[in-house]
Amino acid sequence: MSAARPRLRVGLVGAGFSARLHAEAYRQVRGIDVTLARVAAGRPDRARHFAEEFGVESVAGAADEVLGAPDVDVVDLCVPTAIHGRLAVAAARAGKHVIVEKPLTGCFAPPTTPRAEMLRRALADSDAILAACRESGVRLCYAENWVYAPPIQKARRLLAAAGGPILRMVGEESHGGTHAPVNTRWETGGGGSLLGKGCHPLGAALYLKADEGRRLRGRPVRPRAVTAEVARLTDSEGFRAAGRPFLNLVPGADVEDWGMLLVTFDDGTVAQITGGDSTLGGIRNQLAVYGARAVVLCNINPNDSVQAYAPDPAVFGDEYLVEKLETKAGWSAPQPDEDWMTGYPQEIQDFAEALTAGREPLSGAALARDVIAVVYGAYLSAAEGRRVDLTPYLAP
Amino acid sequence: MSAARPRLRVGLVGAGFSARLHAEAYRQVRGIDVTLARVAAGRPDRARHFAEEFGVESVAGAADEVLGAPDVDVVDLCVPTAIHGRLAVAAARAGKHVIVEKPLTGCFAPPTTPRAEMLRRALADSDAILAACRESGVRLCYAENWVYAPPIQKARRLLAAAGGPILRMVGEESHGGTHAPVNTRWETGGGGSLLGKGCHPLGAALYLKADEGRRLRGRPVRPRAVTAEVARLTDSEGFRAAGRPFLNLVPGADVEDWGMLLVTFDDGTVAQITGGDSTLGGIRNQLAVYGARAVVLCNINPNDSVQAYAPDPAVFGDEYLVEKLETKAGWSAPQPDEDWMTGYPQEIQDFAEALTAGREPLSGAALARDVIAVVYGAYLSAAEGRRVDLTPYLAP
Amino acid sequence: MSAARPRLRVGLVGAGFSARLHAEAYRQVRGIDVTLARVAAGRPDRARHFAEEFGVESVAGAADEVLGAPDVDVVDLCVPTAIHGRLAVAAARAGKHVIVEKPLTGCFAPPTTPRAEMLRRALADSDAILAACRESGVRLCYAENWVYAPPIQKARRLLAAAGGPILRMVGEESHGGTHAPVNTRWETGGGGSLLGKGCHPLGAALYLKADEGRRLRGRPVRPRAVTAEVARLTDSEGFRAAGRPFLNLVPGADVEDWGMLLVTFDDGTVAQITGGDSTLGGIRNQLAVYGARAVVLCNINPNDSVQAYAPDPAVFGDEYLVEKLETKAGWSAPQPDEDWMTGYPQEIQDFAEALTAGREPLSGAALARDVIAVVYGAYLSAAEGRRVDLTPYLAP
Amino acid sequence: MSAARPRLRVGLVGAGFSARLHAEAYRQVRGIDVTLARVAAGRPDRARHFAEEFGVESVAGAADEVLGAPDVDVVDLCVPTAIHGRLAVAAARAGKHVIVEKPLTGCFAPPTTPRAEMLRRALADSDAILAACRESGVRLCYAENWVYAPPIQKARRLLAAAGGPILRMVGEESHGGTHAPVNTRWETGGGGSLLGKGCHPLGAALYLKADEGRRLRGRPVRPRAVTAEVARLTDSEGFRAAGRPFLNLVPGADVEDWGMLLVTFDDGTVAQITGGDSTLGGIRNQLAVYGARAVVLCNINPNDSVQAYAPDPAVFGDEYLVEKLETKAGWSAPQPDEDWMTGYPQEIQDFAEALTAGREPLSGAALARDVIAVVYGAYLSAAEGRRVDLTPYLAP
Repeated sequence: MSAARPRLRVGLVGAGFSARLHAEAYRQVRGIDVTLARVAAGRPDRARHFAEEFGVESVAGAADEVLGAPDVDVVDLCVPTAIHGRLAVAAARAGKHVIVEKPLTGCFAPPTTPRAEMLRRALADSDAILAACRESGVRLCYAENWVYAPPIQKARRLLAAAGGPILRMVGEESHGGTHAPVNTRWETGGGGSLLGKGCHPLGAALYLKADEGRRLRGRPVRPRAVTAEVARLTDSEGFRAAGRPFLNLVPGADVEDWGMLLVTFDDGTVAQITGGDSTLGGIRNQLAVYGARAVVLCNINPNDSVQAYAPDPAVFGDEYLVEKLETKAGWSAPQPDEDWMTGYPQEIQDFAEALTAGREPLSGAALARDVIAVVYGAYLSAAEGRRVDLTPYLAP
Repeated sequence: MSAARPRLRVGLVGAGFSARLHAEAYRQVRGIDVTLARVAAGRPDRARHFAEEFGVESVAGAADEVLGAPDVDVVDLCVPTAIHGRLAVAAARAGKHVIVEKPLTGCFAPPTTPRAEMLRRALADSDAILAACRESGVRLCYAENWVYAPPIQKARRLLAAAGGPILRMVGEESHGGTHAPVNTRWETGGGGSLLGKGCHPLGAALYLKADEGRRLRGRPVRPRAVTAEVARLTDSEGFRAAGRPFLNLVPGADVEDWGMLLVTFDDGTVAQITGGDSTLGGIRNQLAVYGARAVVLCNINPNDSVQAYAPDPAVFGDEYLVEKLETKAGWSAPQPDEDWMTGYPQEIQDFAEALTAGREPLSGAALARDVIAVVYGAYLSAAEGRRVDLTPYLAP
Repeated sequence: MSAARPRLRVGLVGAGFSARLHAEAYRQVRGIDVTLARVAAGRPDRARHFAEEFGVESVAGAADEVLGAPDVDVVDLCVPTAIHGRLAVAAARAGKHVIVEKPLTGCFAPPTTPRAEMLRRALADSDAILAACRESGVRLCYAENWVYAPPIQKARRLLAAAGGPILRMVGEESHGGTHAPVNTRWETGGGGSLLGKGCHPLGAALYLKADEGRRLRGRPVRPRAVTAEVARLTDSEGFRAAGRPFLNLVPGADVEDWGMLLVTFDDGTVAQITGGDSTLGGIRNQLAVYGARAVVLCNINPNDSVQAYAPDPAVFGDEYLVEKLETKAGWSAPQPDEDWMTGYPQEIQDFAEALTAGREPLSGAALARDVIAVVYGAYLSAAEGRRVDLTPYLAP
Repeated sequence: MSAARPRLRVGLVGAGFSARLHAEAYRQVRGIDVTLARVAAGRPDRARHFAEEFGVESVAGAADEVLGAPDVDVVDLCVPTAIHGRLAVAAARAGKHVIVEKPLTGCFAPPTTPRAEMLRRALADSDAILAACRESGVRLCYAENWVYAPPIQKARRLLAAAGGPILRMVGEESHGGTHAPVNTRWETGGGGSLLGKGCHPLGAALYLKADEGRRLRGRPVRPRAVTAEVARLTDSEGFRAAGRPFLNLVPGADVEDWGMLLVTFDDGTVAQITGGDSTLGGIRNQLAVYGARAVVLCNINPNDSVQAYAPDPAVFGDEYLVEKLETKAGWSAPQPDEDWMTGYPQEIQDFAEALTAGREPLSGAALARDVIAVVYGAYLSAAEGRRVDLTPYLAP
C-alpha cells in the first residue's frame, strides 16, 4: 500500500475559522500523504499558533510567499471573499492548483452601486480566475461543502437510481446572523444572506441538476432565469420596538439579512432557495428534492440523529450543540459530528484525490461561476423587481 | 342550559366532497342547535342521498330554492368556484348569510387572457360579493380552514405571548395532483396550484399578520407587493421520458402545477408561499413562522402523531392514511383525525357562533378578498416577470 | 334534531385538576344535553368557585349529597384514588352511574405492607366497586383517556384493517415528577410511577389486545403474567451529589419514581410498559405497536404538529407549552390542543353516549380491574424478584 | 508526516459480511499504515475473491496459518460466534492482538440445556479468552460498534459536560429477522435476539455507565442484577393464521425472536434493553439516556438526516435504503452513510490507534465479558422467572 502513496503539499492562506475546518479535514485524508507545507495569515502570531497546532512545516511572512513556494502543490485560500480573486489568479499564475472557499468571488462596492454593474464585475472577476487556471493548466477546487454533505450525495444516488428529472427543489440555509462583520457590508462582503448563506443550497441544487443532465441527456442542466427578493427584515420599527434583539445585529450592516431566489432551469424545472441571517433557533441547512419518480429530503441540520435536552442553559457547559443557537436550554438537535454531516472531510478528500489523480473535483470551476451568475442575477432581479434572464451571463 | 340555545338553520348548495366535510362538522357543533334545513345539488339523486345520510330536512329542486327558503339563515356554498360569485350575491340579496368555500371567486377565462385582465375581473367579482353582503346586512364566512387548524391557532397564541413582529413565513400546500378535473383548466378553475393550493397557506399567513397588526399597532398588517413564478413542471420532455407517471396528470390541463409567490407586507416583512400539484409523497400542509422573538413551525400534515408502516400496499385495506399518497406501503404519517387537524369542525363552530352572536367570523370577507388580490397579483407577476405593487388592488 | 335530544345530569365530586378537565369536556359534548347538576368539594369555597365558572346548578355540602341527589344521573368522581372505592360503592348503591378517574382504586397502606397483601386488598376493593355497580344495574365508566386519544384509536383502526395479532407493544408515560404530593406516598397514593403513570399506556395496551381478541377469536386477549422492576432513581448519593435537582422532588416521598412492567398475554405476545416521575424534558406519552402485519407508532406527546422555539425562557410568558417541561427556553413541542390529543373530550363524549344509550363505554369495568391486577401484580413481582402469574387474580 | 507513520498488519479470519465491513473500515484508517496481510475463509474461493477486492497481500489456507503468520500483528476474527473462543485463544497464544466481533462468545448447546449451565459455560469461555490475552500480553479489541457510533459518543460528551449520573437508559436493536440461519439455533448461535441484537444497546449502556463511574467516582459503575423475559412471538397460532408472513422466518429456528432485559446497576440506576427479530419497518438502533441533569436521545437508525419516498417499490432499484426494510415503497429513512453512523470506521480507527500506541481500546475485554454476563444472566432470569443477582458472575 504505502509504496505508491501519492503526495499533496498544501499552502494555506488564512488561519481563521475556515482554515481550521480545512486543517482538521486534511488530517483525515486517507490514501494520500497530505503535508501542510506553508501557512500565511494577516496576523503573523496567528499563523505561528496555527502552524504549531496543525503541524504546518513552515510559516510564511505573506500570502505571496505561499503562492511562490516550490514545495506547495495547491494553495488553499481561506481568506475573505474580497481577496479571493487577486490571490486565486496569482496562485494559478504561479502554477499552483487553487482551493477557494465559497463564494468564488463577488463585487465589493458601495451599496448604491447598480446591481447590473455588480453582476458584470462579479462575473468579470470570476472569469479572470477561471482563465488564469485554464491558462496555467491548474485546477480550481470550489469548496462548496454541501456538494459533499452525505445527505446530498445520498440524494444524488437515490435520484440516479429512480431516474427521471428533479422537478423542484426547496433549499435553505439560515440562522440568527452572520459570524463575520466583514460579511455585513457590501463593500467588504459583496452581498448578504443570499450570497453568504444562499450560495450553499444553491450550489447543491445546481450540482444535482448538472449531474442529472449529464446522466439523462449527456450535458448538464443549467440555470436559465432567476427571480428574487431580498430584505433587511430586522431593519424595521416593529423589530426595534420588540425589545431585546435575540438575533445577531451588527452595527453598520447594510446588506440584506434575508433573500430568496427562484431559479428556473433550462429544462423548465425550478429551485426555491433561501438564505437568511434573521432566523432564530439554530442553523437550518435543508434541501428538499421533489423528483418525477421520488422525493428525497436532506436534513443536514437540524436532524434527529441526536436530540438533547437541558433544563437550564448552563447544563451543557462548553460542549458544542448547534451553530448559532441562541440558548443551550430546552431541546436541541446537536450534530454528533457537524463537520462530517456538513461535508468538510469529504470535500477535502475529493480535492486531494482529484489533484493527485489529475481529474476534476466534484465541485469545481463551472459550479463556482454558475453560483456567482445566479446570485448576482438575483440581486439584479430584486433591485429591478423583474425576472432576470441568465443566458447572457452564463459561460458556455 | 338548553332554554337559551341559539339556533342556526343551514341551506346547503352542493352535495359533494366539501359539502360532506361541512355536514360532518355541523354535526359536531356545540352549544347551538344547527339544523340542516335544505340541500340542493346539480344531480337531484345526489342531493336526496346526501339529505338522507346527514338528516337534511328537505331537498330543494334548485339552488335558488335554497337561497329563497324562509327557514334558512345561512347558505353554505359547496360548489365549484366559478359559480361562487353569482350564488353568493343572490344569497346575500335574499337576506341570507353566506358561507363560501375557498377561494372566494376568480376569473374564469381562456388561458390566453391577459393576467391584468384576470386580476381586474377576479377583484370585480369579489367586490360584487362583498357589496351584496354589506348592502343586505349579512355576513360572509370565508371557509379557509387553515385559519382554524389547531397548529395555526397555537402559533397565533404563542406569537402573541412572545410579542414582536413575524419577520418571515414559509408556507406550502402541495400534493400529487388536484382531485377535480374542473380545477385543471383556466376556464373552469380560474387558476391552478397557486389558487387552489397556495390560497391555504397564504390565507393563514395573511390572517396571522393581520392579527399581529391589530395587536401591535391597532390595524392589520396588509400585503403590499407580490413576486411570483408558476410552471407546468410535468409538461416537459424529461418528465414524459421518465416512464409511468406517478403524479396525477389530467388530460387537457392548462393551469400551472406549481407556483410560488413572495408577499411583502406593508411593514417590510415577508411570506414565501408555495402551491403544488406535482409533489409526490402525500399532502404537505406546512407553515413555518419566524418571529423576532420566537419561532413556531406548524406541521398540519405530515406530522408524527401517528406513524404507520405496512410491508405491502394491500395491508391497510380501505383504512384512510394520507391524502394523495401514491402508495400505502412503507412508512406514512396518517392523521388520527384529519378533519380536526385541518380545522374543519373548528371553522364551522366559529361560523355558527359568529352568525348566531352577530359578530365577524375569524375568517371573513376581508381575508377572502385579500387572498384574491394576492393570488391574481401573483399570476400577473409571473406572466410579466415583474414584481406587482398590490396597493391599487387592495380594499381600504 | 332537538326534539329527541337525550339528557345527562352530572354530579361532580371534586373540584380540582381532573374535575376541571372533565368540566371542559362536558361543555363540548355533542348531541346530548349535559347538565352539571351538583358539585361537592372538600373545600366549600372551591366548589362554589368551580360551580360559578362551569355553570354547575347547585353546590352540595358534601359528597353524599351529590350521590343522593334525585336530579343526578351519573356521579363523576374526581377525587384522590384512596376514596374512589367508598364513593363509587355508595354512588352505585344510590342507583347512580359512576365515572371514576384512573386508577380505579388501590391499596393504601404503609410501604412495608407485603405486596401480596397489597394485591389482595386492591383487588378486593375493585371487586366491591364492580359488584355494587352490577347489583344496582348501573355502569362504571373508567376514565382512562388514553383509550380515547386519537393516535390510539387510529392505531386500533389501522391494526384492524391490517389483521393479524399485535406481537409487541412498548408504552411509556413519564415526566419530571408527579403533580400531587398525595401521590408520592404509599399510604395516600397506593403506589408511585407504575400506578400513576404506567396505568395509562398499560390501559391502552390492554384495551388494544382485548379489542384484537374480540375481533380475531371472539373473546378478549387477556394478560397472563407480569414481570417488573421499580426503583427510586432519585434516591441515591450520585443524584444528590449532582447539584440542584431539576426533577420535581417531594419531601417524604416513599413510592417508586420509575417502574417498568412486562406483561405477557394469553396468546404469548407482550407489552413493555414504563411509568416514570424522574424523566426530564417534558411529558412523554407514547405507545409503539408492532403487529404481525403492520407497525403503528402513537406519539401522543411529544409530537411535531407544532414545534416552538424561544431564545429565552420568559419569551412565551404564560402561554402553555408542555406538561412538566422544566424550561420554556429552546425548542419544545407544544400540543395545539393537549386535551384533544390526550383524549379527554372524546372520553366524556363516549361516557355521555354510553350512559344515555344504555351501552358499555369503550373504557369500562373490565379494563379498570385488569389494570389493577397487572399493576399490583407488578409490585409483587418487583418486590419478590420473580414473574407473577396473573391467572389467579383475573376476573373471569 | 510520513516518516514516523506507525504500521499495523492485519490478519483476517473470515471473508463474509462483517469481514467486508471491517475491510472497508481499514481502508479509511488515517495516520497509520494498515496492511491487510492475510485472509483465510472456510471457502478458499471466497478468501481469494475477498483478497483481490480488498488488496489482501496473501491468502491463507486455514485460520491457523493466519494466527501463526509472522507478518501479522493483529488477528481480526470475523467468524461465527461459536468459534470465537477457540480462535481467540489460539491467536493470543501466538502472540497476536485479537479483534473479535460481538458477542465475545457464548454457550452453544441444545435449547434444553439449563440456563444456569449456559451462563457458567459462556463465562468460562470468556475467561479463557481474557486469560490467554493477559498471559500473552496482547490486547483484546471488542468490536462493539455502538460504542463508536457518533450519537453514542456525542451522548457521552454531553453527559460528561452536564455532570450527574445517568438515571435510566432505554435501548433497542430490532428488525424483521436475523440475516444468518446460524443465529437462529441455540447450538450454533448461542442464543437469539437478546444475544445477537440486544448486545448492541447493552454494550453501549454498560460503556456509558462505566465511563460515568470513572469520571464521577473513580471506578466504573457495573451491572448488579438483571431481570428478563424472552419469547418466540412469531411462534403462535395467531401469527400463523395472519397469512403471508412479512417477518423473516427461518425453518428450524429455536431461539427467541424477542427479548427484553432490565439491568440494575450498582448505583441503583437502570437500563431497559430490547433485542428483536420480529419487528417490521426496518432496523431500529436507538438509545435514550435520561440523566439527572440532561436527556440525550441517540437515533442511530432511523433518523431523519435523509427521508426518501418512492411511489413504487421498484423505483430505487438496487440503491440501498435501510437494513431489513420489507418494502422499498413509501417513506423511509435511508442513512446517508450507514457504516459511519453505526460506528464501523471509528471502531477500526480506535483499534488501530490503540494497538499501535499500546493502549486499551474504548471497547475492550472488560466490556466484552460484562455483556456476556448480563445476557446469559438474562437468559437465566427469563427461564426461571426471577431476578438474577450478577455479583457472583462479574469479574472483579
